[in-house]
Amino acid sequence: MRSIAIGRAYAAVRFLGPVSHLVSTFWSRRSLNQLRHRIMNSEKHVLTLQTINPNVASMEYAVRGPLVIRALAIEKELEKGAKKPFSSVIKANIGDAHAMGQKPISFIRQVLSCITDPSLITSSDYPSDVKERAKLLLKGCGGGSIGSYSQSNGIEIIRKHAADYITERDGGIASDPSTIILSSGASESIRNILKLFVNSSNNRKKTGVMIPIPQYPLYSASIVEFDLGLVGYYLDESNNWALNIDELERAYQDSLKKFDTRVLCVINPGNPTGQVLSRDNVENIIKFSFKHGLFLLADEVYQDNIYEESSKFHSFKAVMTSMGEPYSRMELCSFHSCSKGYMGECGIRGGYVEVVNMDPHVFSHLQKMISAKLCPSVLGQCAMDCVVKPPKSGEPSYDLWYKEKTAVLKSLKDRARAVHAAYNSIEGIKCNPVQGAMYAFPLIEIPPKAIEQAKALNVEADFFYAKQLLENSGICVVPGSGFGQLPGTYHFRTTILPPPNVMQDMLERFKKFHKKFMQEYS
Amino acid sequence: MRSIAIGRAYAAVRFLGPVSHLVSTFWSRRSLNQLRHRIMNSEKHVLTLQTINPNVASMEYAVRGPLVIRALAIEKELEKGAKKPFSSVIKANIGDAHAMGQKPISFIRQVLSCITDPSLITSSDYPSDVKERAKLLLKGCGGGSIGSYSQSNGIEIIRKHAADYITERDGGIASDPSTIILSSGASESIRNILKLFVNSSNNRKKTGVMIPIPQYPLYSASIVEFDLGLVGYYLDESNNWALNIDELERAYQDSLKKFDTRVLCVINPGNPTGQVLSRDNVENIIKFSFKHGLFLLADEVYQDNIYEESSKFHSFKAVMTSMGEPYSRMELCSFHSCSKGYMGECGIRGGYVEVVNMDPHVFSHLQKMISAKLCPSVLGQCAMDCVVKPPKSGEPSYDLWYKEKTAVLKSLKDRARAVHAAYNSIEGIKCNPVQGAMYAFPLIEIPPKAIEQAKALNVEADFFYAKQLLENSGICVVPGSGFGQLPGTYHFRTTILPPPNVMQDMLERFKKFHKKFMQEYS
Repeated sequence: MRSIAIGRAYAAVRFLGPVSHLVSTFWSRRSLNQLRHRIMNSEKHVLTLQTINPNVASMEYAVRGPLVIRALAIEKELEKGAKKPFSSVIKANIGDAHAMGQKPISFIRQVLSCITDPSLITSSDYPSDVKERAKLLLKGCGGGSIGSYSQSNGIEIIRKHAADYITERDGGIASDPSTIILSSGASESIRNILKLFVNSSNNRKKTGVMIPIPQYPLYSASIVEFDLGLVGYYLDESNNWALNIDELERAYQDSLKKFDTRVLCVINPGNPTGQVLSRDNVENIIKFSFKHGLFLLADEVYQDNIYEESSKFHSFKAVMTSMGEPYSRMELCSFHSCSKGYMGECGIRGGYVEVVNMDPHVFSHLQKMISAKLCPSVLGQCAMDCVVKPPKSGEPSYDLWYKEKTAVLKSLKDRARAVHAAYNSIEGIKCNPVQGAMYAFPLIEIPPKAIEQAKALNVEADFFYAKQLLENSGICVVPGSGFGQLPGTYHFRTTILPPPNVMQDMLERFKKFHKKFMQEYS
Repeated sequence: MRSIAIGRAYAAVRFLGPVSHLVSTFWSRRSLNQLRHRIMNSEKHVLTLQTINPNVASMEYAVRGPLVIRALAIEKELEKGAKKPFSSVIKANIGDAHAMGQKPISFIRQVLSCITDPSLITSSDYPSDVKERAKLLLKGCGGGSIGSYSQSNGIEIIRKHAADYITERDGGIASDPSTIILSSGASESIRNILKLFVNSSNNRKKTGVMIPIPQYPLYSASIVEFDLGLVGYYLDESNNWALNIDELERAYQDSLKKFDTRVLCVINPGNPTGQVLSRDNVENIIKFSFKHGLFLLADEVYQDNIYEESSKFHSFKAVMTSMGEPYSRMELCSFHSCSKGYMGECGIRGGYVEVVNMDPHVFSHLQKMISAKLCPSVLGQCAMDCVVKPPKSGEPSYDLWYKEKTAVLKSLKDRARAVHAAYNSIEGIKCNPVQGAMYAFPLIEIPPKAIEQAKALNVEADFFYAKQLLENSGICVVPGSGFGQLPGTYHFRTTILPPPNVMQDMLERFKKFHKKFMQEYS
């Protein structure tokens, strides 16, 4: 028992190592010994590495992992005048548009200001539609204040607007406001839904949840935290990250030995892979799910981020419904967010899930479960309102809103192309086109000598590469191992968000680093 | 296996019953049969009452339970012109100050408006200290925008302000900003900390978590959801809800048969009980925790809500630290919120936890765990900033802030006394003084005939009472059974938040109802 606990402690230490030791060196025998000593002494604590929730200890979330902590530390060093081969850190690790200089959409911010300080409704120069929207939203708040708790599933009028938005998006296929649950970002909704499937009582097999590999690590982190079964299906890199039904079938059949697999997650447009699923592909995924009795989770937070002319967003709800019975009765949850798209309002924390065809008793339990968390951020809900019900043509705010929106989306499209072209032009790098979302996930051919070096340091080869990239060029990306990849292949995820001048700088720094790295380890 | 699942389904149905059937009647044999039929048919779903997370199915959260859902329905009926013996619903079920008409603190709202629309910093008539604060907060945001993700533990400058606030509150006992984690409301922090203790691997006993009875049901709901061991210790109603060390000892010793009890939660000031712990009492609780190796969780969200002259708030951190070694090295988490106090900003979702003396490796895992949720609401964090660093004497916003704050607290104090006096004057009701927080938890002597009637309807007697109160008088309170109480005693929780005129109306309606109820069932 004790040795198991210590073993777990060391597994955990493997995570901690890089965090505290990245500054000077990689993980070493000496620091391992130091930590062992500290672990032995930690017995004076009630809560230790021996007694902590083992799922919390083993979960990982690379998007904010050790490299990002190191990037922040380097920024502070630069501020204090440290000399580096670069003058700034470029954080291409996270889809955080405003942090990269994208300007907020005026309509959203004006509405939020008005409801926060309602005296602005009478005193400010804001357009009349901003003021009308503010009044409407405040009417939906208890006591007319955003300081009141909302219903746990969100303010009624906003859920109605979200349903209208979905109905219009899906060409008239109806959405019911009572099936929409607003949340503080899409992450919260995704976690709420995943939690419903936890069921490992009485020696029952864990519920298996199928996720793409590579995937957005919220999924793997939550699956590990909740003690669900992680079932990865590989996206086909050689076919522009396509979602292949044969591979779904293989992953599903393999999983049955260990798990009771009942959930299929699809991220469309893809994160970190940037592919956009065709309508045919969506249909085939739905048929596959029906055949095996799977509950579909459609992460559609990048539905506005489509860059390739030939690509189009097809929502799972629309495709499933238009396929008719029995598919139209399948269970589906679709997620959306105000953090992505043209808005990029990550810090405001707004999102929703549309829950389609869920057993009404289960839905009641879901509503009860979220009620213990009281309610999502009311301002986040109201930001979401502006996303699902933007100004209409002819309204005072429309022209500015349209101009701001199209400028952001056009710029993202340009950057998607530039990133693809730039990485693809480098020897030893291969990058699929970025059809949608906000990321590229290039393949790097890491030389055997570098792989050996990484092994000696007890880190993944792409972590080693990304760490060198950060230390030598100030560029912060996330190693592919944080998202999953075919064994023996190495990648990194970079956002396409740096503005044009920073992007230019980043690509130049990158090329220089990569060349040097390849020389050093070839 | 199947019969277990069906049994579980019915346990769940007991929750669902009142939700859907409150409109016409209580739960009946007939509707049970209907539901059984629906359950049998639900097999076409992937996720059903048979396969749902059993902890989600069995958790309960009475503050937003079936009575509240019924109250909302009655409000809608009234809007549509339904005739009732009352003209409005009075929601005394939840500590939601703004919904009850409390006005927001101007300083908080002006700062939030400015950071949401930074053009207000130059264009508006806001006081200069509001604008300065806005600039400072925006400096802490990536790209100078609240739309950026913050660090997962919150914006650095706000954590620094929180540490300064705690240091000042505790008479100079230092607080370290790196031990403070901001969150979207205190609830999120409480759940994050509780989650660390889940550890039921390898036939290990569940970690027992000691909570007061009566308690705030976030605790019981989260403990059930996370599959922790619920260890209740009774507060002493006959001694003004005092926390008795002998009772702690009894509960702890009893718990060891089933659980590995390692956590003690204390709510001070008490929710739903309103007591404020004396310094001696806090000291004795700390000694008890040390003796048994317990991790202390101090829910101190009502630290500003103290009404009785002889009562004073003593933070666990301050008392523990001033007791010196070995107590000063004990592990403690203390929670605070912008939802309570004089602010009442519930919908904005701001809170924090100060994590004292936690094993640094465990703390790293905690930070990693929350990073998967990206970050708490940035606007919620900024509201918290205004709470921990309000205007100082001499600054332009100080006078108005002070006036608003003291008016709210004085009014709450008056209402705390009025509620206590009013309930205590009614035959068959006994109510302790409301020393702090926002609630009274009166004892009701329910006549045996009413208890029998409730039994026949398969509901708790105090649920029956509260349901009748709602249907006949429009007052929505929460039955004591939702918080826990000594078997055979019955209570309800009411907030002290209705403004004076509504409070008057509520107390009159209540007296009338209670008299009639007692006559009917005596």
